Amino acid sequence: MHGIKVNLGPRSYDIIIGRGILNRLGQELLKLRVGTDAYIITNLWLKNKYGEKLRQELRKNGFNSHFKIVPDSEKSKSLEAAGLVLKELAGWDKSRKVFIIAFGGGVIGDLAGFVASLYKRGVSYVQIPTTLLAQVDSSIGGKTAVDLDLGKNLVGAFYQPRLVFSEVNFLKSLDKKQLASGMAEVIKYAVIKDRRLFTLLENKYKDVLRKEPAVLEKIVATCSAIKAGIVSRDEKELSGLRTLLNFGHTIGHAVEAAGGYKAYNHGQAVGLGMVAAADLSRRLGLVDLGTVLRVSDLLRLYGLPVKLKGVPIEKIIRAHYRDKKFIGKENKLVLLRGIGRPKIVRNIPLSLIKEAVKTVRH
Amino acid sequence: MHGIKVNLGPRSYDIIIGRGILNRLGQELLKLRVGTDAYIITNLWLKNKYGEKLRQELRKNGFNSHFKIVPDSEKSKSLEAAGLVLKELAGWDKSRKVFIIAFGGGVIGDLAGFVASLYKRGVSYVQIPTTLLAQVDSSIGGKTAVDLDLGKNLVGAFYQPRLVFSEVNFLKSLDKKQLASGMAEVIKYAVIKDRRLFTLLENKYKDVLRKEPAVLEKIVATCSAIKAGIVSRDEKELSGLRTLLNFGHTIGHAVEAAGGYKAYNHGQAVGLGMVAAADLSRRLGLVDLGTVLRVSDLLRLYGLPVKLKGVPIEKIIRAHYRDKKFIGKENKLVLLRGIGRPKIVRNIPLSLIKEAVKTVRH
Repeated sequence: MHGIKVNLGPRSYDIIIGRGILNRLGQELLKLRVGTDAYIITNLWLKNKYGEKLRQELRKNGFNSHFKIVPDSEKSKSLEAAGLVLKELAGWDKSRKVFIIAFGGGVIGDLAGFVASLYKRGVSYVQIPTTLLAQVDSSIGGKTAVDLDLGKNLVGAFYQPRLVFSEVNFLKSLDKKQLASGMAEVIKYAVIKDRRLFTLLENKYKDVLRKEPAVLEKIVATCSAIKAGIVSRDEKELSGLRTLLNFGHTIGHAVEAAGGYKAYNHGQAVGLGMVAAADLSRRLGLVDLGTVLRVSDLLRLYGLPVKLKGVPIEKIIRAHYRDKKFIGKENKLVLLRGIGRPKIVRNIPLSLIKEAVKTVRH
Repeated sequence: MHGIKVNLGPRSYDIIIGRGILNRLGQELLKLRVGTDAYIITNLWLKNKYGEKLRQELRKNGFNSHFKIVPDSEKSKSLEAAGLVLKELAGWDKSRKVFIIAFGGGVIGDLAGFVASLYKRGVSYVQIPTTLLAQVDSSIGGKTAVDLDLGKNLVGAFYQPRLVFSEVNFLKSLDKKQLASGMAEVIKYAVIKDRRLFTLLENKYKDVLRKEPAVLEKIVATCSAIKAGIVSRDEKELSGLRTLLNFGHTIGHAVEAAGGYKAYNHGQAVGLGMVAAADLSRRLGLVDLGTVLRVSDLLRLYGLPVKLKGVPIEKIIRAHYRDKKFIGKENKLVLLRGIGRPKIVRNIPLSLIKEAVKTVRH
């Protein structure tokens, strides 16, 4: 079992990572004095698979619980969906000692955190991430949000959980695509911050792909520690440090948007974005071709696409300039000086970005 | 002109109060580097009356502006209304240097602050309150919220403005009812924190009622300083200090709710709540009858009701126990030991509360 702390003064919290740890959840919650009534936001599949076990663990420690099922799709990240949850929550909350549990992947974590940040101007919430993506990334750091038609995550808040509880055994039930999606973020951490993790991912890919629990736990703990360190020093993305986590994401988001969020999922798009960012680094003389190939080969090992199909370049570039990170015509990208050595570069000529995006096209 | 500071570390801001100060707004905004594009949330009446002047003052200092008109009613404080504003805002925001101006009374301030707290996880906003109630109370302190059917202000955030800009000349156009509504909050500050203000309100009521600008400026400045002092020491209502501002509000909210938000407006209900709280203080031996009468006489001078009509006691008591401030069956009320001397009292027997509420009934 691993315990990692996110240091944010009065808003500090622990990330607990382990295998077979669900029976410790109640004790952890009691220590935190989060309240007595758990409003658990989850999807139907998770409730059917783990709901009874979770309810019993809570009941054993004196907590009431209520499951709120939301559809398992990005559509649950909307103001309308959040409004429905808030209304139901207000009706259920009689004792005034309610807290929220986000039990699911990234969508559920973002929605539940958003609801927790708003209900009565903020109630406690706990992240119990069930996907690799959520365990290594979205459950940590307090970015909560819902989407607008005009863009993803446009409405939200920085609102930290009281605990992130990563039961690695939940990852057993991930399918290949979900695993690959999480691995894109894992590879991102390795590329920007951890050469040793990069080498481990190269060497142990068979263990990872067969979901060997010990290696998954090691990966979740390593990535959680990287993210906790960054968030502790730059909670609200003001100093530029947290910006490093956007490696692959800026072009990735543009690829996702240009494909209408159908051609590529988040992990796949981030993978393509990382290849483009690595290639852009090469075009700017920051790394050699070997580094670009090492990144794209690692992505390929984990079943992530490294070649873009069927999304026109012009659409990607247009989407790129709608990104909420841009101010006017200025751009800002996280590039590389080597594996584990990120560099923020501003005002990159559009022509170079286009060339790099073309690199990842057939 | 008065300048008062709300001290909240990196979230500190100024309250500027004066007559004929609108032509200084642009300079103040430039100093704050809030952005270049002002998204002004207001109502139609205010836009027609002051919109052009405000737009010119902004343009003179290089700001773009856009007016977003919302209906002038509590219905604008809903998740649905906030969603519509957020969507329009995202469509208008091209430069990514947008900030929000709340130009209106309490409803507009709460809605605009709520929108600002959520858009892109928080953009700068400025309060330009136009009613007495908003200038002395709701524009200061960062409580933003919208209502649910189940209760008012159930969904929101603590999110501080960058500036509160109180142009006292806006108060000229208030009607009698709006003035009285603001005076209920002014009297509250006097009762809980300022004997001298209380005496001034007793002596100068004719000047206040004819909206003599100098006395209004003095009142706005005095009350703003009281609220700024309290918010600076207890931003999120954790230490109990900010709780003092609820004097008259707990029973007042119950009166408002029991009357279906139609029988009495907020100021009137708070006035009735203050009389009940003063009488409850007398029943507990904290003050004598003279103090109760002094409070109720002052309210009457300003045209506020001190006798409750047509709302059944049982309905008020039921609404009282639904208040979001209560935990289970425990209650907590702000009472008095004298003018300017508040006292928080817990677990008051229901029978005594009923008797006190009966006092304010015919």
